[in-house]
Amino acid sequence: MQTVSIVNVTSYTGLELMRLLAEHPYFQITSVTGRSAAGQRLGQVFPHLYALAPGGQPGAGERLAHLEISEEPAQTDLAFVCLPHAAAAMAVQELLGRGIKVVDLSADFRLRDAALYEEWYRHTHPAPALLEQAVYGLCERYRERISTATLVANPGCYATAAILALLPAVTAGVVSASLIVDAKSGVSGAGRGLTLGTHYSEANEDLSAYSLGGHRHLPEILQELEGAARAAGQSYDQGLRLTFVPHLTPMTRGILATCYAELHPTAMGHLPTSDEIRALYKEYYAGEPFVHVIDQPPHTKWTYGSNHCFLYPLVDDRSGRLLVLSCLDNLVKGASGQAIQNANCMCGFDERIGLQGAAVYP
Amino acid sequence: MQTVSIVNVTSYTGLELMRLLAEHPYFQITSVTGRSAAGQRLGQVFPHLYALAPGGQPGAGERLAHLEISEEPAQTDLAFVCLPHAAAAMAVQELLGRGIKVVDLSADFRLRDAALYEEWYRHTHPAPALLEQAVYGLCERYRERISTATLVANPGCYATAAILALLPAVTAGVVSASLIVDAKSGVSGAGRGLTLGTHYSEANEDLSAYSLGGHRHLPEILQELEGAARAAGQSYDQGLRLTFVPHLTPMTRGILATCYAELHPTAMGHLPTSDEIRALYKEYYAGEPFVHVIDQPPHTKWTYGSNHCFLYPLVDDRSGRLLVLSCLDNLVKGASGQAIQNANCMCGFDERIGLQGAAVYP
Amino acid sequence: MQTVSIVNVTSYTGLELMRLLAEHPYFQITSVTGRSAAGQRLGQVFPHLYALAPGGQPGAGERLAHLEISEEPAQTDLAFVCLPHAAAAMAVQELLGRGIKVVDLSADFRLRDAALYEEWYRHTHPAPALLEQAVYGLCERYRERISTATLVANPGCYATAAILALLPAVTAGVVSASLIVDAKSGVSGAGRGLTLGTHYSEANEDLSAYSLGGHRHLPEILQELEGAARAAGQSYDQGLRLTFVPHLTPMTRGILATCYAELHPTAMGHLPTSDEIRALYKEYYAGEPFVHVIDQPPHTKWTYGSNHCFLYPLVDDRSGRLLVLSCLDNLVKGASGQAIQNANCMCGFDERIGLQGAAVYP
Amino acid sequence: MQTVSIVNVTSYTGLELMRLLAEHPYFQITSVTGRSAAGQRLGQVFPHLYALAPGGQPGAGERLAHLEISEEPAQTDLAFVCLPHAAAAMAVQELLGRGIKVVDLSADFRLRDAALYEEWYRHTHPAPALLEQAVYGLCERYRERISTATLVANPGCYATAAILALLPAVTAGVVSASLIVDAKSGVSGAGRGLTLGTHYSEANEDLSAYSLGGHRHLPEILQELEGAARAAGQSYDQGLRLTFVPHLTPMTRGILATCYAELHPTAMGHLPTSDEIRALYKEYYAGEPFVHVIDQPPHTKWTYGSNHCFLYPLVDDRSGRLLVLSCLDNLVKGASGQAIQNANCMCGFDERIGLQGAAVYP
Repeated sequence: MQTVSIVNVTSYTGLELMRLLAEHPYFQITSVTGRSAAGQRLGQVFPHLYALAPGGQPGAGERLAHLEISEEPAQTDLAFVCLPHAAAAMAVQELLGRGIKVVDLSADFRLRDAALYEEWYRHTHPAPALLEQAVYGLCERYRERISTATLVANPGCYATAAILALLPAVTAGVVSASLIVDAKSGVSGAGRGLTLGTHYSEANEDLSAYSLGGHRHLPEILQELEGAARAAGQSYDQGLRLTFVPHLTPMTRGILATCYAELHPTAMGHLPTSDEIRALYKEYYAGEPFVHVIDQPPHTKWTYGSNHCFLYPLVDDRSGRLLVLSCLDNLVKGASGQAIQNANCMCGFDERIGLQGAAVYP
Repeated sequence: MQTVSIVNVTSYTGLELMRLLAEHPYFQITSVTGRSAAGQRLGQVFPHLYALAPGGQPGAGERLAHLEISEEPAQTDLAFVCLPHAAAAMAVQELLGRGIKVVDLSADFRLRDAALYEEWYRHTHPAPALLEQAVYGLCERYRERISTATLVANPGCYATAAILALLPAVTAGVVSASLIVDAKSGVSGAGRGLTLGTHYSEANEDLSAYSLGGHRHLPEILQELEGAARAAGQSYDQGLRLTFVPHLTPMTRGILATCYAELHPTAMGHLPTSDEIRALYKEYYAGEPFVHVIDQPPHTKWTYGSNHCFLYPLVDDRSGRLLVLSCLDNLVKGASGQAIQNANCMCGFDERIGLQGAAVYP
Repeated sequence: MQTVSIVNVTSYTGLELMRLLAEHPYFQITSVTGRSAAGQRLGQVFPHLYALAPGGQPGAGERLAHLEISEEPAQTDLAFVCLPHAAAAMAVQELLGRGIKVVDLSADFRLRDAALYEEWYRHTHPAPALLEQAVYGLCERYRERISTATLVANPGCYATAAILALLPAVTAGVVSASLIVDAKSGVSGAGRGLTLGTHYSEANEDLSAYSLGGHRHLPEILQELEGAARAAGQSYDQGLRLTFVPHLTPMTRGILATCYAELHPTAMGHLPTSDEIRALYKEYYAGEPFVHVIDQPPHTKWTYGSNHCFLYPLVDDRSGRLLVLSCLDNLVKGASGQAIQNANCMCGFDERIGLQGAAVYP
Repeated sequence: MQTVSIVNVTSYTGLELMRLLAEHPYFQITSVTGRSAAGQRLGQVFPHLYALAPGGQPGAGERLAHLEISEEPAQTDLAFVCLPHAAAAMAVQELLGRGIKVVDLSADFRLRDAALYEEWYRHTHPAPALLEQAVYGLCERYRERISTATLVANPGCYATAAILALLPAVTAGVVSASLIVDAKSGVSGAGRGLTLGTHYSEANEDLSAYSLGGHRHLPEILQELEGAARAAGQSYDQGLRLTFVPHLTPMTRGILATCYAELHPTAMGHLPTSDEIRALYKEYYAGEPFVHVIDQPPHTKWTYGSNHCFLYPLVDDRSGRLLVLSCLDNLVKGASGQAIQNANCMCGFDERIGLQGAAVYP
């Protein structure tokens, strides 16, 4: 049994960690923080948490609902940090200093290059010395390094969907450097902070693109895809030429990334077929518990509340392009579920523990 | 370990049973039926089920996804029947004849009086001889009888919300016979069958009342509330005067029942206070794992995907009326979750097994 | 041609006035105010307004989009005040002092009794001297007085739905004093101000009741129904015993009020029938352009974007209760459309002008 | 005054024509057809139509609501045909034979090449002889030819969004032949016919791509863009290499097309800037009443219920790609509004008549 804390539990990722960890047999939440609600019991602020672990006798749920929200995290074996970027790095530094393993759900340790971070996040990195030791928390790619890490940078939600969609293609070198990711997200991806754009009457029955000048998940996608290509010996000399356009869609959860790439002819001189591509993808993700290469276009609803990602690659014969559709729940595989997957890996547990739940459908 | 079958697995209640039972340690699904999809594997028809129990090695989920949908249920210890009324009664009769315990999710065995059934469902009861042995599947009321039953009639979704909301008041006799239940449901309560009213473009951004001539859950509510009052020695000589108006709301899951009753003055000559009423309710449901009497208006979102019911009773001082707000997920506590709760009870398991999940929020 | 201003145009009611008035042949918007956006052009803040009056050549729409948002309203013939209560009264006083007719969309002049206002709005009325001259802006009831008024208090959205639903019954004296209004509203009724409860991820797929301690539209409903009953010679000696429960539903626009009343037996000793009640309602609203008594349960979608109100009264034979379902668009008949109807009336125009649009369906 | 009929009025496009034409000063609807509802009055089938033209005295709306739905269209000056493809062509042939001008909202006369039609629609064209005389109903491109046409083929909803987005770029030759259109549509685009995919509980909180093997609007987009390029002297020797992926999004109305193209360097050797591209677009659509080139990403909500299309072109400097965002209401500019725009043009009326309404926002 490992003790864990959730730093900034009142965020959506913090709440989702509560939901998922409540049933985890080996992680025990012993500390939760949240500045705005400090001093209150969790169950007062979130009445639905009283129902976390049903039972008349005092049980796990009862205990969780009575946890007092504090300002600072107590000593635990591991901490999940759900703070905004910059604030997160400060907290991570302090936690590591106390010998606590950290899964950081912010963007602070995703980019290996502090200058790149500064360019995209518009401030100096608060703890550049830690960048070296941080591991990018995509188990499908860095499982071994994560298993010995003390600091894991949990990937962005869009980045997870896009990277999982394109990793097999770029590492196999079947596509050119020209990539487009047209991604659509539910509104919870924008978090719990109030903005006009996420006001119900504005976001309902509306669809729009945003961050057209460059979304912050873009450098993260590039770093990982280019790194993986390089490691696989694929030469994208100029790097990848990626356009990434995120869209806000009127639903609470779910990301669908529609990815477009230009196929290279195979050694046989013809373009790969959909069957060949699908075989490539199935082989790449063989044995992965949470990534499923399927034979029909996926629906975000198939992932609602679960840690699964569905991929559907196919060749558009008319244009000779590769299309890859990638679906996940932005708060689970795109955030808190993946964080637990990482924590499992860091602690030597089966990655699947606590993440067994299927999608809530319909 | 008990083997179970799901009859008509392609219904929303059938699919929800799949989701919930996939993690149940003591029930093993060994047979699923569905006329329209017979001969196919579950995972072909519902690709998201491939993700039911994650794992590269063949596991529970893999097994479930590969289950072949058959026309008739195999021999099991227990069967969940998700057929429409009338068809359900025929299937139940056959299953009981084979010595299989049954939880029937249809309306066929909810009303004890075959004549009343005929009046509301417009056809002769197909198996009136079984009515005697059927137990109404509300554990909060009939726990003991359910524990020895072979046939349990799972309550209607609206009926569950309304009965749980009003049981404490009518059995304590604090209200008069005059009751109003204004209930609002998400669209999944109407099932998976296609109708114009549940066509997306019609139901989205729309709100309407329906079944104003009398909804079929009304006699069920009356039977249970009047029965409970009688058992508690409360004399509603003319029976209850109940108006029940259901509404269709633009969301997938969730029921909110707003209940209105006229309070009797207490022995002290004054009307009961909100505190007194809340104490009465808390005592009535003390120790219940899935019914929570809370201190603020509940949100259906607090129950999304979970088996919990939240009740908020209060006295409207201006009018002297009792208001009770009652919330649940129509597919879980209002259907499949309650069915598992009943099956747990019938098989001697802890009622909470397989129903631990908290609400998916937000 | 009358010039008009919209005070606080950046509110949802202000924007809806823009949309509706853009096509009005006799009202010309010459001034719009809005503190937060002062100094900007309307079309900069609301790009969709560029499309208000299509045409390459400079037309009405072009002109509107180029209107500069100012801090204070210019001199016009009439002003629509869309400020929050208290602030509204101050502005109204000033506008009337400048000889400008006012339709006030706030609550400040709806209640005739300053003490009642103070009780419900928790502050002293800023301009009690004006209460005398204010007319409650329900044309269906006060058409004549509105036609000569200089200050009209536009009714609340819930109040409009509830009063129209119950006026015929209470003035005819067919019901007792015991009334329940269970009302459901879309989220735009809560305005454009940011709150957690109207944050998309919180309000979507959620349903809840609120203001259970007493919603501010309650005294307004009581004042109007009791006043009308009195005027019609109906004696509700103790006043009406009204319970009003508002609910937030996951849609942008629309109110459905489900109203419950206890029927009196007729002189003939039996309860009125649905047909008799419907005849009473049809007669009461005969000739009304915007109130339609129909023969089936109405849908809020039938009113989307239009100024119409649909009523469906019927007798619940089982309980002897009267049910009245009342539907409207909270931003049109519940606010800005009704405001224009009032302004038309005040200026001697046909009430229907500018309000011809049918519902946007689906 | 011209008389018009609506053939298959019970479709969503037929209903939307009713809404828009009710206020048209020069078109009078004198005949409506609909097989399933033949013999009934419009107002019985669609109660909200009683409110089309408010007024106690019999007015336009009253008249419309009392129109009897017939099986065959009466003789009129013009007919709007809202039948499914194939059935439409048969009806069009018959109507033209009676000397009636036709706007056909189906796909039957959009493709000039009968063989192409057969390839995509999988049946022989029912009236190939008429293809010659049909004009593609995009006023922004064929205004003159439409003004003398007797048969106008109203464009598809996706096709309208995509063609308007890319016409300026391909006719100016600033982009290469490589195009991607990632389009997202509300559910009403799928019509009023019942399918599992448009069942509320399936489509709500869900997002998916469909028609990945090739959507039928693709050849229409190609025909128009290639034709326009050719006419402008741009040489795309191999034709355009277009990938078009439609997505179903959980909202009733609205299309957002996100278009990607590869920019050619200008004569000056550098890539065009966003400003240059925007100037090009603004010039192309100068004077167009319904196409607006704006300076920020558009929202579908800005077009809700209106005939406007918003375009936002910009250069993605990182990748050197052109992005164009294109928004419209699929039932208005994407169908019935555009049909009226065409009919206005065919009859010599100002194109804007009857289409003045601004978007219903929020």
